[in-house]
Amino acid sequence: MTLVTASPLPRKRATVHDVAREAGVSRGTISRMLNGDGYVSADARERIEAAIRKVGYVPSTTARNLVRQRTNAVGFVVHEPHALFLEDPNIGAILLGANEALSEADHQMVCLVVGSERDAERVGRYLRGGFVDGCVVVSAREHDPITAVVRAAQLPVAFVGHPPDLQDMSWVGIDNVASAHEITSRLLATGRHRVAMIAAALDRDSGADRLAGFRQALGDRFDAGLVARVEHYAYSDGVRAMTELLDRAPDVDGVFAASDALAAGALEALLRAGRRVPQDVGVVGFDDSAWATRCTPPLSTVRQPAEGLGRAAARSVLAQIAGEQRAPAAILLDTPVVWRASA
Amino acid sequence: MTLVTASPLPRKRATVHDVAREAGVSRGTISRMLNGDGYVSADARERIEAAIRKVGYVPSTTARNLVRQRTNAVGFVVHEPHALFLEDPNIGAILLGANEALSEADHQMVCLVVGSERDAERVGRYLRGGFVDGCVVVSAREHDPITAVVRAAQLPVAFVGHPPDLQDMSWVGIDNVASAHEITSRLLATGRHRVAMIAAALDRDSGADRLAGFRQALGDRFDAGLVARVEHYAYSDGVRAMTELLDRAPDVDGVFAASDALAAGALEALLRAGRRVPQDVGVVGFDDSAWATRCTPPLSTVRQPAEGLGRAAARSVLAQIAGEQRAPAAILLDTPVVWRASA
Repeated sequence: MTLVTASPLPRKRATVHDVAREAGVSRGTISRMLNGDGYVSADARERIEAAIRKVGYVPSTTARNLVRQRTNAVGFVVHEPHALFLEDPNIGAILLGANEALSEADHQMVCLVVGSERDAERVGRYLRGGFVDGCVVVSAREHDPITAVVRAAQLPVAFVGHPPDLQDMSWVGIDNVASAHEITSRLLATGRHRVAMIAAALDRDSGADRLAGFRQALGDRFDAGLVARVEHYAYSDGVRAMTELLDRAPDVDGVFAASDALAAGALEALLRAGRRVPQDVGVVGFDDSAWATRCTPPLSTVRQPAEGLGRAAARSVLAQIAGEQRAPAAILLDTPVVWRASA
Repeated sequence: MTLVTASPLPRKRATVHDVAREAGVSRGTISRMLNGDGYVSADARERIEAAIRKVGYVPSTTARNLVRQRTNAVGFVVHEPHALFLEDPNIGAILLGANEALSEADHQMVCLVVGSERDAERVGRYLRGGFVDGCVVVSAREHDPITAVVRAAQLPVAFVGHPPDLQDMSWVGIDNVASAHEITSRLLATGRHRVAMIAAALDRDSGADRLAGFRQALGDRFDAGLVARVEHYAYSDGVRAMTELLDRAPDVDGVFAASDALAAGALEALLRAGRRVPQDVGVVGFDDSAWATRCTPPLSTVRQPAEGLGRAAARSVLAQIAGEQRAPAAILLDTPVVWRASA
């Protein structure tokens, strides 16, 4: 590590104290003038204005917000372990969708990352502390400390996804059961008889619901021995799970992977094992992320409207802030199947 | 889209006005008590405490910060077009590194995404508005509106990377010229004679410096016709650039791609063209991101310490806030070459 130092830092920001000293008035007088509440003499007013120009004071939003009780900022809380945050293609797209909707409404999105219990507590203090007017929460699990923290903050909120313990808070999501049912049925319709699933994130509604949809589609043909359970929606988990499935059931001829990253990992494991896709084994994924078109062959999958989820959640929070949405809502977006060459 | 409504939202958060009404005292008295500054009678104190419990008031950080002029929040400003934000594996790792360092110091990281001119203006107002004590800025370009906005805010700041117009602001980075020089030399040492480069993001220091290092390593052998210039460090740009290079110079036998994503795209184009890697063409990348180990063959590359860059930038901002770092600093982190099978 090399350290190079140069010229001194710019001077400290001017505060209301500097203005008060320069103008020879109290802080209270300045506050009355800036907030237009209470009498300030013409003389004091002139001296304050001159002092503000001289010291280069920028009236603080913090001060104004104390009076207005509004920040025009909305939190975007992401609760993800490190690896998943870097692997999951949806989080970024959800974030960009939310940023776009908030930007249109001239609100500042502030993204808060929760990587530990300590982060969760600090984010809770932040949300309660008057820094934001509301918040969007993504990827919360059941019994997530963030859910409790957000409820305690009593702010306008919309979750992306719906952990079962949300109670009376709004959420935006997709119908994971129906989507999984539909893509599994499409896979079965290609004439497969031994169809496995790589299931992930079973402590989240997305993971548990995709397994439920798979099970429904198979009906009597469902075989618990053909379900590999992994922790994350990640490529490496897909490689491991598919390798295991091939050991356990060498006659497997179809696989529904609960994410495109898992499906990409499964393709790699199948390639290593000398199986042809889709001739020997048909593979379908979930997300329609960048993974889907980069795989060889490209993946048949379910399109998850990630940017749309972010936009819808942000709009729900804005409507709550504006008093236009008074009751909590559950908003479901559509998820078309995109059929390509992997099955 | 389906809309389901349920029970009413939780009641509005209690404010200091509610406490004042309940306790029968002025807001000023409550503020004196909460901030421990000025006399409050024992009787008023008791009534205020009872009122706070009754209305469920949480003293606002906004109010406290007005007095302390501190928020314990640090901004993390990302300036990226959509596609790049989703493609660039470094942004996420830099963000997690910064979050970790700030979390250790019990500061809240607030990530602000700039996707348009309008976003830049709003982020500027936010930074000047007293919501944060300092900020980290990633991926700023030359003449970036964000650089002007951050300078005007006169906050403690550290950039990741160093656009040439930073003047007297601190930054953290790597030596892109030396790193590019080293990996190109390693590639030449494998006996290649027609070595091309896929150069990207030439309006940023990272892109321009990697091209400069490549040029230095080649010396007299540098051939401008063997440089393909693309806009982003992205996979699809790599496919396009390599296809073009093969058209222009079919005898090319080595390629330095300015990122691993570009190198992965180049591998795809070489595969399509029937070239073997590394036998016919040696390929090296830059980043040592997830791309590097997922490619076939895995990439020889330069390890970019992305989390370390985020940590170092956050620590620089914390040191400036604490008054421990008084002069702007340029901090360079090490970038080891990681040699695998692609060259």
